[in-house]
Amino acid sequence: MLNWLNLLDSIGTMAFAASGALAGVKKQMDLFGVIVLGLVTAIGGGIVRDVILNSLPPYVFVHNLDIIIAILTSIIVFIAPKSIEKRRIFFYFDALGLGVFSAIGVSKAIDYHMSFIGSIILGTITAVFGGMIRDVLQAEIPLVLRKEIYASACIIGTSLFYVLHLLKLNVSINLFLCTIIIFTLRIIAFSKNWQLPRKML
Amino acid sequence: MLNWLNLLDSIGTMAFAASGALAGVKKQMDLFGVIVLGLVTAIGGGIVRDVILNSLPPYVFVHNLDIIIAILTSIIVFIAPKSIEKRRIFFYFDALGLGVFSAIGVSKAIDYHMSFIGSIILGTITAVFGGMIRDVLQAEIPLVLRKEIYASACIIGTSLFYVLHLLKLNVSINLFLCTIIIFTLRIIAFSKNWQLPRKML
Amino acid sequence: MLNWLNLLDSIGTMAFAASGALAGVKKQMDLFGVIVLGLVTAIGGGIVRDVILNSLPPYVFVHNLDIIIAILTSIIVFIAPKSIEKRRIFFYFDALGLGVFSAIGVSKAIDYHMSFIGSIILGTITAVFGGMIRDVLQAEIPLVLRKEIYASACIIGTSLFYVLHLLKLNVSINLFLCTIIIFTLRIIAFSKNWQLPRKML
Repeated sequence: MLNWLNLLDSIGTMAFAASGALAGVKKQMDLFGVIVLGLVTAIGGGIVRDVILNSLPPYVFVHNLDIIIAILTSIIVFIAPKSIEKRRIFFYFDALGLGVFSAIGVSKAIDYHMSFIGSIILGTITAVFGGMIRDVLQAEIPLVLRKEIYASACIIGTSLFYVLHLLKLNVSINLFLCTIIIFTLRIIAFSKNWQLPRKML
Repeated sequence: MLNWLNLLDSIGTMAFAASGALAGVKKQMDLFGVIVLGLVTAIGGGIVRDVILNSLPPYVFVHNLDIIIAILTSIIVFIAPKSIEKRRIFFYFDALGLGVFSAIGVSKAIDYHMSFIGSIILGTITAVFGGMIRDVLQAEIPLVLRKEIYASACIIGTSLFYVLHLLKLNVSINLFLCTIIIFTLRIIAFSKNWQLPRKML
Repeated sequence: MLNWLNLLDSIGTMAFAASGALAGVKKQMDLFGVIVLGLVTAIGGGIVRDVILNSLPPYVFVHNLDIIIAILTSIIVFIAPKSIEKRRIFFYFDALGLGVFSAIGVSKAIDYHMSFIGSIILGTITAVFGGMIRDVLQAEIPLVLRKEIYASACIIGTSLFYVLHLLKLNVSINLFLCTIIIFTLRIIAFSKNWQLPRKML
């Protein structure tokens, strides 16, 4: 992978692990529980993507860097949860993770000859599935199914990636654009409190 | 696959997606959440079956028709949930889906040389696992573990399929009988309110 | 596999299935639900390990003994839950299962050339993942993320296994030591009520 992509991937892993670990601390889980929640949030989406693509063992089990980053982040969050929770920077890191995980996911799906719709789904799974497992392990309805624009940003960004791929755009430019667009959409959606429509019976 | 089987599979996919999407609407999920619940309910069981059989990527990622049906159904349910919910026909479609998903699942498991018990389990997983994920994503105990005869119909139908397969019955007759028996058992069990036994401590 | 390992594996399968089935009975699930909870608790961890290792179909679908043991155990628990629940011996069986499942898991991960950290994670998943699915299917936060030393014993035991493997110790001695150490740690931790640290925000 490209160097800047590796760096953004590590930052995203850290941010996702921190969100999982914080959730574990809030539920009064013990150290093991906090690490598990940090780990699954950070690496769960990529594992599910790799299982579906038949790219086994999953990438993260072959190159353990993301596992190590996620465990260390979770331990730091466990030691000093309050000082982490307040940091606004983590929100931006999380948005960056959303973008870069989606971009890596859709790119890998295309490498494995997935269709348009399969590639979009796998890119989005890479970015949001870990957070869904985090919420299920807390016995809660996943936030991503209810809250402001989050997965929708992934769908838009990964769709753009696929179209640019068809136009034979250079893959590194493509990864960069996809990441930036998802990051920007997420930031704007959050600050303007954009919501998807919902219905009541 | 046979043409009538494709047709029944599409009807079942529609019914399963509708049940997932309705659950999402009731939990006040946004449009993305409703589509996710519709999708996992319709295609989750088949994906888990294909992962266990090592038939990867899962069938539904290679032939996207069921994904498209599930997404469109979910959007329609989102737009007009009340008019869908009342339709009694959906109960029959759901029972049909139960039958045809079980039949396809046990048939594929046999093609992959699974044992009797493995084939029954995989046929049943194909039919009921999507609904279990739907309920877990709502933070609820899966209905299928508690309610009237549902999975039991799959077990009976897929066992019959396996026995008829050993007797070298033609596979399309076999698929048809398995579907019809599960469909009929489910309808009767529901209308007579048959229950499996349960205990209290 | 070695004969004594097979025997301990069967005892562990029985104990794990009993814990799942008892949970199902307590939630007033019907017979099907009780069997599903017994099954996933007993075989869920091994299936996830085999999916990640790309050892498909999972071992338990090729050799069905553990499936049969888990189903029979669940039926017995369903018939006579009270007489099972009181038996203190089941606590020891469960601790034995924890040890032997971890040992088998880490050993298989090493056979598949996993790294140190990957092997520890897969050994621990083999032992605790089934119980996590059991709790998620009850719409509860998994016990293992909150309660006294449980998974930690697996991490210590499987780490030791990996180190001894590097020292070229005979694999059957290694399996035996790993099982015994996890079993002993679990018993002591429970009787002394050892806890991992936890934080509150």
